[in-house]
Amino acid sequence: MTTRNEIESHLFVIHGGTGDLARRKLFPALYKLLTGEGTKGSCHILGVGRKDLGDDGFREMVRESFIETGSAAVDSGSWCTDCIHYQQMADIAKEGPALAQRIREIEEAYSLPGNRIFYLALPPQAFSDTIRSIGGEGLNKSPGWVKLVVEKPFGTDLDSARELNRLIHEYFDESQVYRIDHYLGKETVQNLSVLRFANTVFESLWKRDRISSVHITVSESLGVEQRAGYYESSGAFRDMIQNHLTQLVTLLAMEPPARFDAESIRNEKVKVLRSIAAIEPEDVVLGQYTAGEMNGEQVSGYLSEEGVANDSTTPTFVNLKLAIDNWRWKGVPFFLRTGKRMPRRMTRIVIEFHRPPISMFGSHSLVETNPNRLLITLQPNEGFHLLFEVKEPGDEMRLKTEELHFHYHDAFEPLPDAYQTLIVDVIQGDQTLFVRSDEVEASWALHDPIIRAGLPIHPYPAGSWGPPASDELLAKDGTAWMNDYDPD
Amino acid sequence: MTTRNEIESHLFVIHGGTGDLARRKLFPALYKLLTGEGTKGSCHILGVGRKDLGDDGFREMVRESFIETGSAAVDSGSWCTDCIHYQQMADIAKEGPALAQRIREIEEAYSLPGNRIFYLALPPQAFSDTIRSIGGEGLNKSPGWVKLVVEKPFGTDLDSARELNRLIHEYFDESQVYRIDHYLGKETVQNLSVLRFANTVFESLWKRDRISSVHITVSESLGVEQRAGYYESSGAFRDMIQNHLTQLVTLLAMEPPARFDAESIRNEKVKVLRSIAAIEPEDVVLGQYTAGEMNGEQVSGYLSEEGVANDSTTPTFVNLKLAIDNWRWKGVPFFLRTGKRMPRRMTRIVIEFHRPPISMFGSHSLVETNPNRLLITLQPNEGFHLLFEVKEPGDEMRLKTEELHFHYHDAFEPLPDAYQTLIVDVIQGDQTLFVRSDEVEASWALHDPIIRAGLPIHPYPAGSWGPPASDELLAKDGTAWMNDYDPD
Repeated sequence: MTTRNEIESHLFVIHGGTGDLARRKLFPALYKLLTGEGTKGSCHILGVGRKDLGDDGFREMVRESFIETGSAAVDSGSWCTDCIHYQQMADIAKEGPALAQRIREIEEAYSLPGNRIFYLALPPQAFSDTIRSIGGEGLNKSPGWVKLVVEKPFGTDLDSARELNRLIHEYFDESQVYRIDHYLGKETVQNLSVLRFANTVFESLWKRDRISSVHITVSESLGVEQRAGYYESSGAFRDMIQNHLTQLVTLLAMEPPARFDAESIRNEKVKVLRSIAAIEPEDVVLGQYTAGEMNGEQVSGYLSEEGVANDSTTPTFVNLKLAIDNWRWKGVPFFLRTGKRMPRRMTRIVIEFHRPPISMFGSHSLVETNPNRLLITLQPNEGFHLLFEVKEPGDEMRLKTEELHFHYHDAFEPLPDAYQTLIVDVIQGDQTLFVRSDEVEASWALHDPIIRAGLPIHPYPAGSWGPPASDELLAKDGTAWMNDYDPD
Repeated sequence: MTTRNEIESHLFVIHGGTGDLARRKLFPALYKLLTGEGTKGSCHILGVGRKDLGDDGFREMVRESFIETGSAAVDSGSWCTDCIHYQQMADIAKEGPALAQRIREIEEAYSLPGNRIFYLALPPQAFSDTIRSIGGEGLNKSPGWVKLVVEKPFGTDLDSARELNRLIHEYFDESQVYRIDHYLGKETVQNLSVLRFANTVFESLWKRDRISSVHITVSESLGVEQRAGYYESSGAFRDMIQNHLTQLVTLLAMEPPARFDAESIRNEKVKVLRSIAAIEPEDVVLGQYTAGEMNGEQVSGYLSEEGVANDSTTPTFVNLKLAIDNWRWKGVPFFLRTGKRMPRRMTRIVIEFHRPPISMFGSHSLVETNPNRLLITLQPNEGFHLLFEVKEPGDEMRLKTEELHFHYHDAFEPLPDAYQTLIVDVIQGDQTLFVRSDEVEASWALHDPIIRAGLPIHPYPAGSWGPPASDELLAKDGTAWMNDYDPD
């Protein structure tokens, strides 16, 4: 097995090389490879974009990205400037031959073995033409390996996702395809599997006998900002639930895989998706933020945001309940919630355990025992909190909820960015943290009907935790969001 | 139910009223009652001792104890000096009538209803005469309630414990008897039951299916100090194992009681003791400390301590393995260890869980997964640590043991002293934290044969964790002491 500080020489082609994602995430993630011992010189980058830039102009853009994102060395001596190339491509459909020629020139000039990564850091409407262009020129075939990386969104419904998969499979085998869900690259998400399968205390609790419900929240404090163009046609369901939150569900709920490899894990994740019952309309609450106050400032409602239609019915909030009808989870509701303009930015999983069957200490006082809860915080301040009951010191028997806690920042250096993890995995050929074609289709198959159902949109003021119907949805199952619990 | 800040008026008779225990523990524990709202004036103390002291002399001694132990108010205005009395008693066997008369005088003078506590803070050889004297004078009968509190050691073997119980039961019903094991008064020990029966996550792990072994350590850094007279005839087995450590075993291992009351809990504790298999000689390691170095200073061996016989075979260290042969614990070894002159003072329980059945992450690196462990620290720095495996951040899949932790001092005021808890319980008539006659006999029945077996004594240097045979005892069961793990 290759260790992580050796990589095979390759050409990393970024379609959308001058775009926002490239500048904010991809260049910084590639920085380590460009400067690292044993990797420097192995990774050639070819930016492809509409802008009229030469190699030097692109190198300057990369350098500026390093400065903006705080990467250490920015003078050209410390990283391989010769490894950075640029190809202008104004019309994807027509300029395929020019790109192909350029790629072959670079590979020859630097004696690269034909290993190629095509990274589609593009708006989704450009996916098809780009893939056709790559395939049409035969760039998908080479003496080395060729990989295709596709950013979200992967389709807008089941049909479009199937269509995109069909097109990709015309030119690429599934083993060459890396569908990005950057949540999967987060250390804390990768740690979900370790938490379960390296710790008998947790895995033995991980079932309907012990767990009463699971709550997943991905909240943002921001509104739609500059993204109304995309967001109006997407909404919270497609933007967050269908991909990120559903991925978290599959990782939390899956059976132990036969081996800890990409195919075994993804087989288990698909099994979870196929065990989820069709979502009932009464188990879904959609919302849209109205004007409100956040941190003492007035903010606009969604309908007043720039680029949003006056009568838009795009949900900016979704809360739904999933029922996983298998032996492990039958009867344990999984509540998923995401929204914009909520009180704070937070990604948190709460595993709520059954209460004790009897209140053993009831004869001493009238306390009702709280259920144990495991909080897995993905951001901010990544960590675990196990809420448990202790005896309050003193003569009377009084219970109090306290927490066993662990914070990553107490034990480790700052966590690497998800893209750094994912890009190394692409180069190394590890598909574990990428979404397989059948996964993405199963997820659309699950959510598509309810997205199309035309459910009512409940207004909620900016700065609140969503419409009251969301709290009622949990109350029906005897549980509640832990909104106010902020362990830090 | 009486709340804790009301108490019934009573006379608290301390036999051994000028002794070390009274000064260090009992007076400070009574301080709150003597000064508290609703309790001031309800508790009259009668010190009984050989010393020739008047009431005033004794009051001054109590005042000095308050000063030494840091109790807040020491000027006589803030506490009831009139409530403190003293009776000299040079010869217990003869002066019973004088004591009886004094008690009746005080009760009459202060209109006390005859509620009496006799607290035997005496060397064990004085127990019998004192009980006979109390009973002979009919002090065990009154219009109010009468309680007898007996300090450890309760007998030196099964026969003497039975004999003492028989004598006590001549004059007192078991419901009037409070056998002190001050470990049971510690907040952290009381919390063992809460940990188990108010927390489904822990109670559902609490069995042979999940737990591989249990380790209990009560280590002292001190040597025998001024106590050789007592210690030579007692040794670590009688001094610590038969009482404190065995009590911890019963609380850890017992089934959920029918109710959380004294009889139900003590029934379950006795059941545990009766389920423990006879201890095999090969499961016991005895030790005696030799000269060594502690914190950079040379210290003497046990045989050179003042008052210790040159050829003493008294163990200052015991490590043994208990097998609880019931459905919950069959096959889970309980390792008990105590010793003097060990590297540090510590009382800690380690619950070691089974390792995962497979090493899921083995294909990524050659890590061997550590078992989960729950550390319950009773002193110093009381708290819980759940050791679990996390993924070390970075590209490679590497596991690292980290801890979920909770410290009492982060959540609560300093914990009350055990004696404060226990004395309030005696006054209120709650026997939960006291040892019942059948418990003490069952514990002696378990340990007596092995104490008498004349097992070899292994030397160990002061400042070490005991003889190597102790480590070997655990190694045979595939486990090890966590000596070096100091989470704080």
